[in-house]
Amino acid sequence: MRILMLILDGLGDKPYPNLRNKTPLEFARTPNLDKMGHLGETGLMYTLGPGIIPGSDTAHLALFGYDPLEYYQGRGVYEALGAGIKLKPSDVAFRVNFATKKKGIIVDRRAGRNGYKLDELANELDGMKIGNAKILFKHTVEHRAVLVIRGKGLGKNVSDTDPHVTGKEIREPKPLTKSKSDKKTAEVLRRFLKEAERILKDSKVNRSRKRKGLPPANALLVRGAGQYKPVPGIKGRFGITATGIAGGALYKGVARFVGMDVPDIPGATGDKNTNLEAKAEAAINAKTDLVFLHVKATDSFSHDKDPKGKARFISKVDKELVSKVKSEFDLIFVSGDHSTFSSIGEHTADPLPILIYGDEDIIRQDLGAFGERKSALGQHKINGLDVMPILLSKAGFMEKFGE
Amino acid sequence: MRILMLILDGLGDKPYPNLRNKTPLEFARTPNLDKMGHLGETGLMYTLGPGIIPGSDTAHLALFGYDPLEYYQGRGVYEALGAGIKLKPSDVAFRVNFATKKKGIIVDRRAGRNGYKLDELANELDGMKIGNAKILFKHTVEHRAVLVIRGKGLGKNVSDTDPHVTGKEIREPKPLTKSKSDKKTAEVLRRFLKEAERILKDSKVNRSRKRKGLPPANALLVRGAGQYKPVPGIKGRFGITATGIAGGALYKGVARFVGMDVPDIPGATGDKNTNLEAKAEAAINAKTDLVFLHVKATDSFSHDKDPKGKARFISKVDKELVSKVKSEFDLIFVSGDHSTFSSIGEHTADPLPILIYGDEDIIRQDLGAFGERKSALGQHKINGLDVMPILLSKAGFMEKFGE
Repeated sequence: MRILMLILDGLGDKPYPNLRNKTPLEFARTPNLDKMGHLGETGLMYTLGPGIIPGSDTAHLALFGYDPLEYYQGRGVYEALGAGIKLKPSDVAFRVNFATKKKGIIVDRRAGRNGYKLDELANELDGMKIGNAKILFKHTVEHRAVLVIRGKGLGKNVSDTDPHVTGKEIREPKPLTKSKSDKKTAEVLRRFLKEAERILKDSKVNRSRKRKGLPPANALLVRGAGQYKPVPGIKGRFGITATGIAGGALYKGVARFVGMDVPDIPGATGDKNTNLEAKAEAAINAKTDLVFLHVKATDSFSHDKDPKGKARFISKVDKELVSKVKSEFDLIFVSGDHSTFSSIGEHTADPLPILIYGDEDIIRQDLGAFGERKSALGQHKINGLDVMPILLSKAGFMEKFGE
Repeated sequence: MRILMLILDGLGDKPYPNLRNKTPLEFARTPNLDKMGHLGETGLMYTLGPGIIPGSDTAHLALFGYDPLEYYQGRGVYEALGAGIKLKPSDVAFRVNFATKKKGIIVDRRAGRNGYKLDELANELDGMKIGNAKILFKHTVEHRAVLVIRGKGLGKNVSDTDPHVTGKEIREPKPLTKSKSDKKTAEVLRRFLKEAERILKDSKVNRSRKRKGLPPANALLVRGAGQYKPVPGIKGRFGITATGIAGGALYKGVARFVGMDVPDIPGATGDKNTNLEAKAEAAINAKTDLVFLHVKATDSFSHDKDPKGKARFISKVDKELVSKVKSEFDLIFVSGDHSTFSSIGEHTADPLPILIYGDEDIIRQDLGAFGERKSALGQHKINGLDVMPILLSKAGFMEKFGE
């Protein structure tokens, strides 16, 4: 049996007066999801457990059946894997912003959120040697990049250099423990950042950005240290093959981390203009037992505090994506990775609706629609870690426990 | 207070078009269960947790408050106890089929599913000595028997000899680890099976079966090795006395394993013709705090892919059993041990409906009926291990935790 796991990022939300007291999902025009909600099993999911506010990385680990308490290695690891860097054991990875500073003070944490020629700039930093450590540096999208320090005796407990607000100086990287390995990472990072700023300052790219009226990318803000350790893949743990289809680097990264095959899909951008039909097609054409299909923009609208935009985008997902995939899989799971309230623009710990749909072996709940409050009447109340066992048992990939 | 735990095996199911899109339980005529569902507390239970497909043995352990991860010792143990064998610590027990082979090939895994004179045949094998190990062998019902190897230095990790299909040879028993004790069990088993076949071949019973036109019981298929270790009884763990009323050997066995008193009830056969009224009467007359009352045939109809038969049998249970017991206990729990979908004839991991009924201290849910989808609206979403604490606290057998 072929399983689709469709994750609409940050799907769960609350009702809003300007949506006639409905949630974005309830307000959206979703004939396909509603039919699947009517004929399918539904319920609510606390991705990491009641009261735990999920990050995107930890939430996806749980959805893939990997307990984040055991398998979470820090955001940098998943970003680096998502950027296509082949990590080696003990590599220490960071998320990086190209930023703009003036007289030592950060004036723009995102260098105008403009990626113009930043890949060239990244290439100048990539491959640098600091003592016996090697630097890997790769631009991803907009102002974003990943940094990997490779070498012996490195630790991951170092502080972010990102002050997280403008008007402040960049922080010095500090070891967070007294261990030798954390000290070494902090020291390599400090020396790299010093050398990097010297290179950025004199670079042709920044002269070229200046001519275009763009803020210079003359500083690096580093955060989210993680240290990579390979883990047993989804094939070994669950006996199935899996494909991950996503635009955003983080989601590709978590999928690669658990051993999914992650192709690059042209047009899958991870933003509001992503090509939903191309993603649907890639999902349908994937040859694996499980296909993980991730759509990011639902969450982005919530972060932008735009519940109406979120509802419109969900309608679009129903029309351009759900309509195409719904009869192409034997079993379909639809949910999000966490709730994101458009009122505050932040992830919340609230349970979010789930939907399990298939031709057979489904206890249809006859609830008429798919939404937060309808799903509260469905039969499932689960945690994120329950999703894989439920799907795999329904699809015939699980053995009985006992006889 | 007296508690009844009524388990209708494999109760949970899915809706079927030929039952007007109702499940067998929803379709059945059950005025008593519906009234109890209306006045009682309801909900859904994942017996072993979401996505875990329960076996009958592990499921009953959980219902009795015994975590199968800690207490499951292999099916053979519970079958042997159910057959009335008094196990000693370290005994290794197996389920056995009498089977029919021809030129070394299994042609009937169940010797015609006919138990004619198999008790005599079992007696010929019982008591045999293999080296310093002793063989206990007992016929149960139809083609079924149990085998116990008693001796020093035995392990339980040996392979089944049952090929599980006809047209194949019987497998050699193999140790599944390199440990000396597993090797010893495999060797004793191999020698016993060889000797047993010699005895079966020349037996009078098989000549007599031949005259009756029955397939000879000339082979033994062995599976489900388990090694017995006594566990703290229900009285010690929960402070209550308990009676187990069941026809099937497995259910009697699990009940004995946890220290229940298990009488033999005339007419309680564990099949579709079981005497429900006799079981109801035995439950009512039992003098213990808890009575576990097991009805098997609900599951059998599901395994036979007969949802309509299952519904009819549930109607019969309601009329002949529930009607009699419903006012004879202070607290009644009704559920199954797992879902069995009649569509596929297999156990599934789906949550199944529960019902808690009593005169007092019940939060009635006013749901109008008892069934899978009504119960989804009830207040409980529990695991099997929660059942005993919930019943014991409602019945006044539990102390406060803290003050």
